[in-house]
Amino acid sequence: MNRSLVWTDIGKMEVRGLETPPLRDGWVRVRSEFCGICGSELSAFLGQNELRRPPSVMGHEFAGEVVEVSGSVDRSLVGQKVAVNPLVSCGKCRYCRSGLRNLCIEREIIGVNYPGGFAETVDVPAYSVYRVRDTLNGSFSEPLATALRAVRKSGIEPGDRVLIIGAGTIGLFALELARKAGADIVAVVEKNAKRAMIAREWGADLSLPPEALQDRDFDVAIDAVGFSSTRRMAVERVRRGGTVVFLGLHEPKAEVNGNSIVRDEVSISGSFCYSDEDFSRAVDMINRGTVLRESSWYRVEALENGQDAFRRMLAE
Amino acid sequence: MNRSLVWTDIGKMEVRGLETPPLRDGWVRVRSEFCGICGSELSAFLGQNELRRPPSVMGHEFAGEVVEVSGSVDRSLVGQKVAVNPLVSCGKCRYCRSGLRNLCIEREIIGVNYPGGFAETVDVPAYSVYRVRDTLNGSFSEPLATALRAVRKSGIEPGDRVLIIGAGTIGLFALELARKAGADIVAVVEKNAKRAMIAREWGADLSLPPEALQDRDFDVAIDAVGFSSTRRMAVERVRRGGTVVFLGLHEPKAEVNGNSIVRDEVSISGSFCYSDEDFSRAVDMINRGTVLRESSWYRVEALENGQDAFRRMLAE
Amino acid sequence: MNRSLVWTDIGKMEVRGLETPPLRDGWVRVRSEFCGICGSELSAFLGQNELRRPPSVMGHEFAGEVVEVSGSVDRSLVGQKVAVNPLVSCGKCRYCRSGLRNLCIEREIIGVNYPGGFAETVDVPAYSVYRVRDTLNGSFSEPLATALRAVRKSGIEPGDRVLIIGAGTIGLFALELARKAGADIVAVVEKNAKRAMIAREWGADLSLPPEALQDRDFDVAIDAVGFSSTRRMAVERVRRGGTVVFLGLHEPKAEVNGNSIVRDEVSISGSFCYSDEDFSRAVDMINRGTVLRESSWYRVEALENGQDAFRRMLAE
Amino acid sequence: MNRSLVWTDIGKMEVRGLETPPLRDGWVRVRSEFCGICGSELSAFLGQNELRRPPSVMGHEFAGEVVEVSGSVDRSLVGQKVAVNPLVSCGKCRYCRSGLRNLCIEREIIGVNYPGGFAETVDVPAYSVYRVRDTLNGSFSEPLATALRAVRKSGIEPGDRVLIIGAGTIGLFALELARKAGADIVAVVEKNAKRAMIAREWGADLSLPPEALQDRDFDVAIDAVGFSSTRRMAVERVRRGGTVVFLGLHEPKAEVNGNSIVRDEVSISGSFCYSDEDFSRAVDMINRGTVLRESSWYRVEALENGQDAFRRMLAE
Ligand SMILES: NC(=O)c1ccc[n+]([C@@H]2O[C@H](COP(=O)([O-])OP(=O)(O)OC[C@H]3O[C@@H](n4cnc5c(N)ncnc54)[C@H](OP(=O)(O)O)[C@@H]3O)[C@@H](O)[C@H]2O)c1
Ligand SMILES: NC(=O)c1ccc[n+]([C@@H]2O[C@H](COP(=O)([O-])OP(=O)(O)OC[C@H]3O[C@@H](n4cnc5c(N)ncnc54)[C@H](OP(=O)(O)O)[C@@H]3O)[C@@H](O)[C@H]2O)c1
Ligand SMILES: NC(=O)c1ccc[n+]([C@@H]2O[C@H](COP(=O)([O-])OP(=O)(O)OC[C@H]3O[C@@H](n4cnc5c(N)ncnc54)[C@H](OP(=O)(O)O)[C@@H]3O)[C@@H](O)[C@H]2O)c1
Ligand SMILES: NC(=O)c1ccc[n+]([C@@H]2O[C@H](COP(=O)([O-])OP(=O)(O)OC[C@H]3O[C@@H](n4cnc5c(N)ncnc54)[C@H](OP(=O)(O)O)[C@@H]3O)[C@@H](O)[C@H]2O)c1
Ligand SMILES: [Zn+2]
Ligand SMILES: [Zn+2]
Ligand SMILES: [Zn+2]
Ligand SMILES: [Zn+2]
Repeated sequence: MNRSLVWTDIGKMEVRGLETPPLRDGWVRVRSEFCGICGSELSAFLGQNELRRPPSVMGHEFAGEVVEVSGSVDRSLVGQKVAVNPLVSCGKCRYCRSGLRNLCIEREIIGVNYPGGFAETVDVPAYSVYRVRDTLNGSFSEPLATALRAVRKSGIEPGDRVLIIGAGTIGLFALELARKAGADIVAVVEKNAKRAMIAREWGADLSLPPEALQDRDFDVAIDAVGFSSTRRMAVERVRRGGTVVFLGLHEPKAEVNGNSIVRDEVSISGSFCYSDEDFSRAVDMINRGTVLRESSWYRVEALENGQDAFRRMLAE
Repeated sequence: MNRSLVWTDIGKMEVRGLETPPLRDGWVRVRSEFCGICGSELSAFLGQNELRRPPSVMGHEFAGEVVEVSGSVDRSLVGQKVAVNPLVSCGKCRYCRSGLRNLCIEREIIGVNYPGGFAETVDVPAYSVYRVRDTLNGSFSEPLATALRAVRKSGIEPGDRVLIIGAGTIGLFALELARKAGADIVAVVEKNAKRAMIAREWGADLSLPPEALQDRDFDVAIDAVGFSSTRRMAVERVRRGGTVVFLGLHEPKAEVNGNSIVRDEVSISGSFCYSDEDFSRAVDMINRGTVLRESSWYRVEALENGQDAFRRMLAE
Repeated sequence: MNRSLVWTDIGKMEVRGLETPPLRDGWVRVRSEFCGICGSELSAFLGQNELRRPPSVMGHEFAGEVVEVSGSVDRSLVGQKVAVNPLVSCGKCRYCRSGLRNLCIEREIIGVNYPGGFAETVDVPAYSVYRVRDTLNGSFSEPLATALRAVRKSGIEPGDRVLIIGAGTIGLFALELARKAGADIVAVVEKNAKRAMIAREWGADLSLPPEALQDRDFDVAIDAVGFSSTRRMAVERVRRGGTVVFLGLHEPKAEVNGNSIVRDEVSISGSFCYSDEDFSRAVDMINRGTVLRESSWYRVEALENGQDAFRRMLAE
Repeated sequence: MNRSLVWTDIGKMEVRGLETPPLRDGWVRVRSEFCGICGSELSAFLGQNELRRPPSVMGHEFAGEVVEVSGSVDRSLVGQKVAVNPLVSCGKCRYCRSGLRNLCIEREIIGVNYPGGFAETVDVPAYSVYRVRDTLNGSFSEPLATALRAVRKSGIEPGDRVLIIGAGTIGLFALELARKAGADIVAVVEKNAKRAMIAREWGADLSLPPEALQDRDFDVAIDAVGFSSTRRMAVERVRRGGTVVFLGLHEPKAEVNGNSIVRDEVSISGSFCYSDEDFSRAVDMINRGTVLRESSWYRVEALENGQDAFRRMLAE
């Protein structure tokens, strides 16, 4: 039996013992030690994500220990501490073959299409695990890899002036990585005063509400919210020839000024999840301790407190 | 006196003799031999462009012979056949210094901010002239350079499947350059049946009205119209990881699906005018005869017929 | 029994019936219909390649029909005409995961590390086969993919002036693809007068022996020979800021002028084999008939004439 | 009269009062406050640089105050503290027009082709001056811009493993910028034990003599020495697909393994001086204090001690 935090209905979760299915060939079983709660899970919990239906076991930001491997998998994996890349892909399409599993036409996600990390054990493909030094930090690999891809796509260069919109987990990690990539100035725009404060603690030069932003001349803007208004802000606040990365997914709509994009030669790229290269780099940086040295911004809870944790985060 | 086709009022043009001002230092005087009519001039003529006010002398797609040079300019230019890059820029800003005069914060255009090519002579900066073999073909340098920049920005590679939206001059030139850049398949979408036909003559594999387009899997899409609807089409019709270039300027609005841009990792770039490198390449290709071998798609008129020519093109 | 052209000793080949081993899981059996002879096989035949030892069955440029599939492979492949990507790779290393199987740390090649295409049947991984319309043209996929990668890496743009050194199969294909990618001028340098002539037939603007080359101002130079002297020529003949691709492998040595590389900001890239994306594009272009329309430059021989064919090619 | 440190003969310098020529149009006169000594000047001093002949006034790494401007130049420059980009270029060639003045076919250098910064005043083009907060730090703009271009060309990404060869001024600045660009691990190879120590103080993870280097798997290697042996080391120590930048200019020879470049798909780029964008970024970073916070690695001397300073540095 696999003790799991089951999302049973809108606004409800409970811990149940679920039957453990046989381990698929090429997969491994991981004892989940730490699993983050993603913003998309908070909205799913409220029934605001049509792609997700209860009952299900969420959790795609996790790390733990390999406890079992299927026949064809190298047995030395057993006992290792690993972070898990939750993307499951076909391995055959043009994208998989080009190192872009994140664009696989059959992509699925552990914690969405398969039972996830809010459970005692999780089954995942063997190609998805990456050794980590410690599983608490390791559980940040997934959101860090997401932010890393966006920062890599933004092409930030030493000396750049960068705007980050949104200071949720993704925005904060993007802030840290923008700094790491050499930005001289990082401004963060965030509605929520508490999060704006955290952004300052993480080293933002400016951290202020959207309506207070004055500057218009950023080399790079990263939208880590995903409203039409924040996308427009990103496009309007970069300099001529500037680069925008769209990362947020709050609503489909994007109403921007097309003529300005033309006349100012703005570039916009979407960034989704991570390639294996992104994920592997994120893990390496965490293992080396060259990122995420702050530790006061998160809280650890027992599986049993799952429902409360979801509710509390929604209230914050 | 400089015989000039003056746009005197909405829908009206007449040939007048204008006083010739002294030649500025660093500038040269060009006898205009051929000058194209740009789509933006057609709408200006109708009073639909708020940046343009009568009276003025339009014309930014021209070539001719240098007839006079100011003191500091190399005299050997006199007598040469040249195409003219109509961009006037400050030479000092970050963009000018990076080879991106098209983004100069003080950019101006001969034919908009200065009297243009629909006249016997035109004054232009010496740095703007490029030798051409013949001035009729040379007068296509400007729109060809515009299309070239878009095609270079699109990163078309051998074997690509490309969508061009709009078969006006810019769209047709983009079609030709997409082929030249190695596209295996070029589809053109065009409302106007006559122009759709020309696109087929220019080698489009498919040339059809917007509503008839089926394919969704282009590597590259170039919007050479500039409506919100055509921009959306460009974004929706590229494959995951595909590239879109916005070139058209018909309206400011651009309502696209931001979540799709994220999840499909679409890239969008605006393309405006041309760098000197683009312009110089366009001229070289025309001089070598490696582009624009078709000759049945344009018509030459005398300056005196200017008003009629504008009216006829608007009626087509 | 598998009728195979066995390289038995230096300078010797004979057709033998070899035992057919059981088909590996995940692999398919292909009846080889056409198989090209690569320059590296000619030198191997003479004992000049220390990585190759007789007895062995060469052949890595082949296409044919799938005649059998192993258990886990989709049965609908049987009966299909396919070209074969001969790279065998681990699927797990950083390179395999980034779409760069050509850099796999355990890469192997059908026809080198496994029996190759000079035989009635060849066993290959299922992921290696690409449908083709006809297997004669399809057998050119491998060298075309090699040249395509080099041309893609060279970043040729419309209007470029390109130098190709060497007009063997790889050089000729690079010539064709450089044109396709938009080069305005392609010069080919080739010692062998007969091949220099073929280059002219394939559309080279200039095709001349190394000592006759005058120009120094190419945007791109591709070395498809691989001597120190040809590498140096490539580096010396590009303009400031120009791009060089090293493709040839005739000798390890490369003595170039390092200070010129610095002061002229020359870029050099090695290009090896092909990614799956390159291979797939090469196959698509062949299937569409948008490349390799020439047909007089090769000759087809029966397997039985293999030894003679090798000897004749070496004499040419 | 302009008090200048004149290089009078091999190994000799003395301070003389030179006649001040009239200020050229478009130029400004700068009172030189701090001027660095470049490695190339040390070897010139010894007569080891055939491009330089005594008598001359060296110095191309300087900053000071504008004391006079020629007629056409904005008078408000007078009194400003500025760093000087010493490149003088034609402004008309393909490279100048593409933002690559460093590749100008007529490029010249203040301090080589024109009297330089080891003097009371220096004349420079108005386009060459960049405001600085303080002229001591500002005088590092030139070598910082040099290192910045190399680092930008190297494409270092967050998490990379980087090798720097040579810990002279250029190598040290490259080390700092590699860190700033996000490198997780920076190894420095340096013959001179004292400089190897400084590299450690500047944050190198490893700093050791060439023969002690074990690793072979760097993402990026930057050669800031310029011997054939150091270039070869750079090429051999990067991973498959890795990037090498050649920056050093100690000797023309570069003997590398061409077949390895091909089979490992190594990329090599030369990097020379700086574009205006590089220079401007370097100045901005110095003004913001986001680089070069170390202050114990240099020493300031009076102009009168010039000869001694040259001799002492050569002895170190
Ligand atoms: N592309 C990908 O691969 C990927 C991966 C993961 C997540 N995402 C998406 O990225 C977004 C951010 O994720 P997250 O986990 O960091 O979410 P999050 O915790 O919801 O963070 C978003 C932050 O932005 C703030 N915000 C909302 N509207 C704003 C506005 N108009 N201006 C400035 N700030 C505003 C929010 O404040 P309030 O809390 O007050 O609203 C919140 O602090 C989400 O849309 C998520 O779905 C994308
Ligand atoms: N970015 C730049 O540097 C730059 C430079 C030059 C021009 N431009 C802009 O580029 C655009 C094209 O220029 P042009 O000179 O080629 O203009 P054009 O002659 O007006 O061509 C546009 C063509 O698109 C067709 N069209 C209109 N709506 C369409 C739709 N929904 N779907 C498909 N086709 C449609 C038009 O047909 P109808 O005639 O029937 O409407 C026309 O044939 C203009 O907006 C122009 O302002 C931009
Ligand atoms: N990087 C890769 O992935 C890859 C893949 C396949 C092949 N290769 C290598 O690429 C090279 C070309 O392959 P290929 O099959 O086309 O070989 P090939 O048939 O031997 O062609 C080389 C051609 O270059 C000529 N040549 C020799 N020295 C020359 C010189 N100094 N200047 C100009 N031309 C000269 C040769 O003439 P002669 O016949 O008179 O000597 C021959 O015509 C080989 O080294 C091969 O090993 C690399
Ligand atoms: N590309 C450009 O735009 C540009 C601009 C400026 C300078 N440069 C060139 O860049 C190079 C470095 O300039 P710099 O001012 O930093 O010169 P530098 O002070 O001479 O620094 C070179 C350092 O490398 C050390 N070194 C010598 N041989 C070595 C080896 N085999 N392995 C490891 N370290 C070795 C030297 O030690 P020792 O002192 O013991 O020999 C010295 O510490 C010079 O060649 C210079 O001409 C190029
Ligand atoms: Zn897939
Ligand atoms: Zn400007
Ligand atoms: Zn591998
Ligand atoms: Zn120049």
